[in-house]
Amino acid sequence: MNFFNYRNNELYCEEVPIKKIVREAGTPLYIYSSRTLKRHFKEFDEPFKPISHITCYSVKANSNLSLISLFASMGSGADVVSGGELFRALKGGIPPKKIVFSGVGKTEMEIKEALKAGILLFNAESEEELSVINEVAGKLKKKAPVSLRINPDIVLQTHHYISTGAKINKFGVPFQKAIGIYSHAKRYKHLNFAGIDAHIGSQITMLTPFIETIRRLHGIISEIKKGAVNIKYLDIGGGLGITYDEEDPPHPREYASALIKELKGWKGALITEPGRVIVGNAGILVTKVIYRKENSAKKFIIVDAGMNDLIRPALYGAFQEIVPVDQKEHTIVADVVGPICESGDFFAKERMIADVRRDDLLAIMGTGAYGFSMSSNYNSRGRAAEVVVDGSKYRIIRSRETYPDLIRGEKIFLRKG
Amino acid sequence: MNFFNYRNNELYCEEVPIKKIVREAGTPLYIYSSRTLKRHFKEFDEPFKPISHITCYSVKANSNLSLISLFASMGSGADVVSGGELFRALKGGIPPKKIVFSGVGKTEMEIKEALKAGILLFNAESEEELSVINEVAGKLKKKAPVSLRINPDIVLQTHHYISTGAKINKFGVPFQKAIGIYSHAKRYKHLNFAGIDAHIGSQITMLTPFIETIRRLHGIISEIKKGAVNIKYLDIGGGLGITYDEEDPPHPREYASALIKELKGWKGALITEPGRVIVGNAGILVTKVIYRKENSAKKFIIVDAGMNDLIRPALYGAFQEIVPVDQKEHTIVADVVGPICESGDFFAKERMIADVRRDDLLAIMGTGAYGFSMSSNYNSRGRAAEVVVDGSKYRIIRSRETYPDLIRGEKIFLRKG
Repeated sequence: MNFFNYRNNELYCEEVPIKKIVREAGTPLYIYSSRTLKRHFKEFDEPFKPISHITCYSVKANSNLSLISLFASMGSGADVVSGGELFRALKGGIPPKKIVFSGVGKTEMEIKEALKAGILLFNAESEEELSVINEVAGKLKKKAPVSLRINPDIVLQTHHYISTGAKINKFGVPFQKAIGIYSHAKRYKHLNFAGIDAHIGSQITMLTPFIETIRRLHGIISEIKKGAVNIKYLDIGGGLGITYDEEDPPHPREYASALIKELKGWKGALITEPGRVIVGNAGILVTKVIYRKENSAKKFIIVDAGMNDLIRPALYGAFQEIVPVDQKEHTIVADVVGPICESGDFFAKERMIADVRRDDLLAIMGTGAYGFSMSSNYNSRGRAAEVVVDGSKYRIIRSRETYPDLIRGEKIFLRKG
Repeated sequence: MNFFNYRNNELYCEEVPIKKIVREAGTPLYIYSSRTLKRHFKEFDEPFKPISHITCYSVKANSNLSLISLFASMGSGADVVSGGELFRALKGGIPPKKIVFSGVGKTEMEIKEALKAGILLFNAESEEELSVINEVAGKLKKKAPVSLRINPDIVLQTHHYISTGAKINKFGVPFQKAIGIYSHAKRYKHLNFAGIDAHIGSQITMLTPFIETIRRLHGIISEIKKGAVNIKYLDIGGGLGITYDEEDPPHPREYASALIKELKGWKGALITEPGRVIVGNAGILVTKVIYRKENSAKKFIIVDAGMNDLIRPALYGAFQEIVPVDQKEHTIVADVVGPICESGDFFAKERMIADVRRDDLLAIMGTGAYGFSMSSNYNSRGRAAEVVVDGSKYRIIRSRETYPDLIRGEKIFLRKG
């Protein structure tokens, strides 16, 4: 459910016609609906109210400061995976004590920065990482709060690139090893084992894998040597899916009630790390048709957004719904492709789509998550602008990159061949 | 052949130890060898000296200004595919009369910029585009020089994302249609049909597809209505492959002599658009081992470069050779993975690799092309620095992105949820 709707056959975001925004901000353009963002955050967060919990927005899904600060104002914490995301979360107003730091490759510098900021928890992914955090904390004369990320060895029906909880993945520590680490937690003088963590993947559309994960985490907690650690936080990660095409994921309410049920008797707090489920359907990528073209085999709609703006179709084979900003009477079957010089630069193949012509606008729906945050300057294309709509107002929250932006930091050294 | 070599078991770029550069510039780090760049450019360009030709370096492969200006000093032109690349080519000192503009989705603005700059040729990809170029040129009171890009319908044994010359691809105009367009060229008052163009794909390791393409272009030229156009340029595009793993592509000399043979009797000039073949093996991505980690199923070497720095393995399943900066006595079998929170973030799987430990450096070879140019800020990671080595000197030609760089252009609008 979102606030992108047609009025008199014309697409609006909340109270604002998309065309009006495009006149000012140009294309390609990411547009986010603040009502949708707020609604999704609430729908996710509120069902957990009966228990002690922290909703840590997963910054990597969409890292724009305006979105982070909106969620901060609604009580959100943040799940960050790099020093850059930590910087963004703090800038966006997330209290350090609501920040968890995930990821398999934290550098010493990043660990230092997070310790200095006073974050809630490191989600540590290996014994090797525990040693380094311990060492860095020792040098800073601090005690580092850690969760151990468990690899529950759950294999998912999702794209193999976004399944993360199977033992062939790089993530987490196996079950048995985890019990050993917790039971001998005192070995690490500068660590406080305050939590336990798992994250099994992305775009998951069933409840069972989450329930199974909580059970495995509980299993570990109950097997840890008595008195070794005091686990106050259970972090189930993120991964709840959304509808891109015909997926039918559980509603956040069902997700929450299933988790709460499993957590019966547990005295600590639950941490969740939602990303896509909050921002995914709150954003669209608006693009202009540059050319229509056909040959004996196919019709092509060539648009001014490219795989540098949105790489999900090329990288994951992801489906993205595409609708016209002005509704059309007729449809055609066509490939929707970008201007980049690769055949991988496409948004839809052999898709039934509105009969759009040059200069018409298309909206690529459900691109609030992993859209702009994965965008690049490939083919020396400046990154798109981002706009947020709030009722009848809108604002550019990130300006379009210019040609001088492309070469920032470059110096000409080699003048002579 | 490149100038990355071991001396006393330590990797050098030309006369400079990689470790020395890393001490100043950090990791992850792209390092290019200018000797290799020069040698590759010469080896490609010189065999064409017997005929009239322009070597138009394909800017998208690596767009750094230092590289462009080096090639400019060696007489190179440029193949650009966007306004941003045109901006870079001009800044890098490429004469406009040696610039060709390719790509299926040129916008009016880009066409205008290219006309004002006075480029050599537009490689036009459709009748629709011809009309727009014609219109824009008319408004500017200019005559636009164009080549028509032919889709020769040649199917290649390459990754389906980088095959571009088959009729299911978005590129070019079919054979028969092209003859019609050229024969009635006078319809377009503001166009000068000065060339003909094809580009069949990337990383091609055989000569036959190129020879076949030239024959088809010749076939078109001979069928065009007499006197309709005066084709002075034949543009064969780029696409010559390099050795990443066990590929055995033809040497540029063989490529040149095969093309020259096919062009016997042709009075015009040949345009080539080499990218990867010149810069691919002239660059490496140096990365530091952050952790070694293992579980019952696998060993992992976690490095500080991620798919945001180099996306070829994730996007194309591309093989990249990985070697240690300090040679090791032993090897292990491991996955080499980055710090990004996706299973797609890998550089090698189940690879026999040097027995490296935390803080050791690895070099991902053959990353001069489609490495930095495709990099992003995913996971809010600043993009890597780029360095060029020239004999015993080296210089940072693009500085590492900082945290403030990540949020440039962003404004906080939504403060209240």
